[in-house]
Amino acid sequence: MEDNMEAITSSGVSTALRCIVKLGGAAITCKNEIEKINEESLSCVASQLRDAMMPAETSSGKILGMDWSRRNGLNSECFDNFDDLGNASVSDGFPFIVVHGAGSFGHFQASKSGVHKGGLHLPLVKAGFVATRISVTSLNLEIVRALAQEGIPSIGMPPFACGWSTCERNIACASNSQVAKAIASGFVPVLHGDAVFDSSLGCTILSGDVIIRHLAEQFKPNFVVFLTDVLGVYDRPPSDPKAVLLREIAVDKDGKWSIEKPVLNHSNNQVEFTVAAHDTTGGMVTKISEAALIAKLGIDVYIVKAGTEHSLKALKGQVNGEIPDDWIGTAIRSAKRS
Amino acid sequence: MEDNMEAITSSGVSTALRCIVKLGGAAITCKNEIEKINEESLSCVASQLRDAMMPAETSSGKILGMDWSRRNGLNSECFDNFDDLGNASVSDGFPFIVVHGAGSFGHFQASKSGVHKGGLHLPLVKAGFVATRISVTSLNLEIVRALAQEGIPSIGMPPFACGWSTCERNIACASNSQVAKAIASGFVPVLHGDAVFDSSLGCTILSGDVIIRHLAEQFKPNFVVFLTDVLGVYDRPPSDPKAVLLREIAVDKDGKWSIEKPVLNHSNNQVEFTVAAHDTTGGMVTKISEAALIAKLGIDVYIVKAGTEHSLKALKGQVNGEIPDDWIGTAIRSAKRS
Repeated sequence: MEDNMEAITSSGVSTALRCIVKLGGAAITCKNEIEKINEESLSCVASQLRDAMMPAETSSGKILGMDWSRRNGLNSECFDNFDDLGNASVSDGFPFIVVHGAGSFGHFQASKSGVHKGGLHLPLVKAGFVATRISVTSLNLEIVRALAQEGIPSIGMPPFACGWSTCERNIACASNSQVAKAIASGFVPVLHGDAVFDSSLGCTILSGDVIIRHLAEQFKPNFVVFLTDVLGVYDRPPSDPKAVLLREIAVDKDGKWSIEKPVLNHSNNQVEFTVAAHDTTGGMVTKISEAALIAKLGIDVYIVKAGTEHSLKALKGQVNGEIPDDWIGTAIRSAKRS
Repeated sequence: MEDNMEAITSSGVSTALRCIVKLGGAAITCKNEIEKINEESLSCVASQLRDAMMPAETSSGKILGMDWSRRNGLNSECFDNFDDLGNASVSDGFPFIVVHGAGSFGHFQASKSGVHKGGLHLPLVKAGFVATRISVTSLNLEIVRALAQEGIPSIGMPPFACGWSTCERNIACASNSQVAKAIASGFVPVLHGDAVFDSSLGCTILSGDVIIRHLAEQFKPNFVVFLTDVLGVYDRPPSDPKAVLLREIAVDKDGKWSIEKPVLNHSNNQVEFTVAAHDTTGGMVTKISEAALIAKLGIDVYIVKAGTEHSLKALKGQVNGEIPDDWIGTAIRSAKRS
């Protein structure tokens, strides 16, 4: 942890980032229904995040909800319960950053207008840029609310507003100072895939996965967790009866990866081919490649199904080091550790 | 206009800002009901803003709505109408910035927790910071949606996320570059009063009026319009039968202001005293003082009732120069012009 980029708090104490969590779009939204949140899954994810970030508060049973909204039943009486908290001081939880995907938010607006291809001078692209941002920021607000209801001091930080921009789809400008300040003050920044300006294309879509890689490089968290809607990464589509869950993937310093567990009958090359075929439907090679870019920094990545005992263990850091035999998910780690 | 700070577009063309509009919290929300938008007023304001920003599109009768949300009736058929727009190119409207107040959003959360007084180490303040930001960003999203539905390419830019911060409640850091880029790309940035970090207090509330003054200094718009829920500024509470609407206020280079029209029977000093008494209920001296700080830069300020023919004229720039006799509102201008 010596080489972690540390956020300096106002009191001069440095805070190392514990974890970056990706809430996969498929895990928190209903994929096939436009702009529909999977409330049950999101609520479970928020509850697990609270357990992982603030074990002390959770064990004491007191939760100070932070979404004081009319929709959430706000009235003057709510506040009477808070009066005894006025001068209490609680310790900050573990520092986390949350990044979420879009799922059924934003995707439709972006693909219909071609925002990812640029061309802001075209009215359809400009309108699509606005429509995409409305959709993804509305999802961001819902996620911030869900976390706040669990007592997590979450702060929405839409990348466009934060000044993130790209050049030929690669990050050109990413203001980390506001994210660092938020962490140092004990908040949990909540970022997301967003429509941004691109200096060559005019505009494009900056994905949550690219954001995570950038944040991981800058803040060097102890570990990264991807919460998805499947148990982990398989060697072929999970719907295939022969599909095998990959348990451990080792990544060398060049970013090349190989499957360590389980030992498969076919060779690595064959697996890669099989996984590549899978990619057209499930994006698993992309997922492994993105994760490998993080793992080669020496940061362990866990891909695990949201809302399970396995995701809770991963979020709590209980699978760092030796992976328990009963843990189900995919660990992607730098080769030197395995 | 020679001294305007100009935003440089990607094509190298500079864009002078035409107007900064304040949507007063009282004009767009129901003041006495927590987190309730005045839908009728907001819809009317959005329509007038469209007329003022994009007179050409409005006269042609075609509106390309930009809120493609499920809530707004999104379905695949919506997009069939847009296909003919794919390669069309329309001219950008007049460059505007919109700043809105909080009204019945945020105020309750902020005042109950004391966010404006700072102290982020206190759990109630930290929770209030989160709750306030949820409330004001949810209002921001609704306003962006309302403008987008009218075809205004609106982009939510919450000041906290943009990296704005204060020191002893004065603006210490305000990133204007993303606002300038958004304007240069033909978007309408929508900012708002927000909870922000304060380097001395920990946190505070940055008001929409302070944001407007800062933006006016930086971008030197042709004029500024405050949309409120009363006809303008009176010499005493509007409910008083003797209340007189102030038509023109002149501001000298030191920021001192005097009433030019109407000619009142009592002296300036007496008026100031009366208005000061008014201030405890209506904040009118604060409003005039804030407006005077803008007017002394040589930028005309119009305070006018939202959703009236008078607000439309002000937004269209039709009361710049000589004020029409039938225009009802308050003009606050630098003394050299009057």
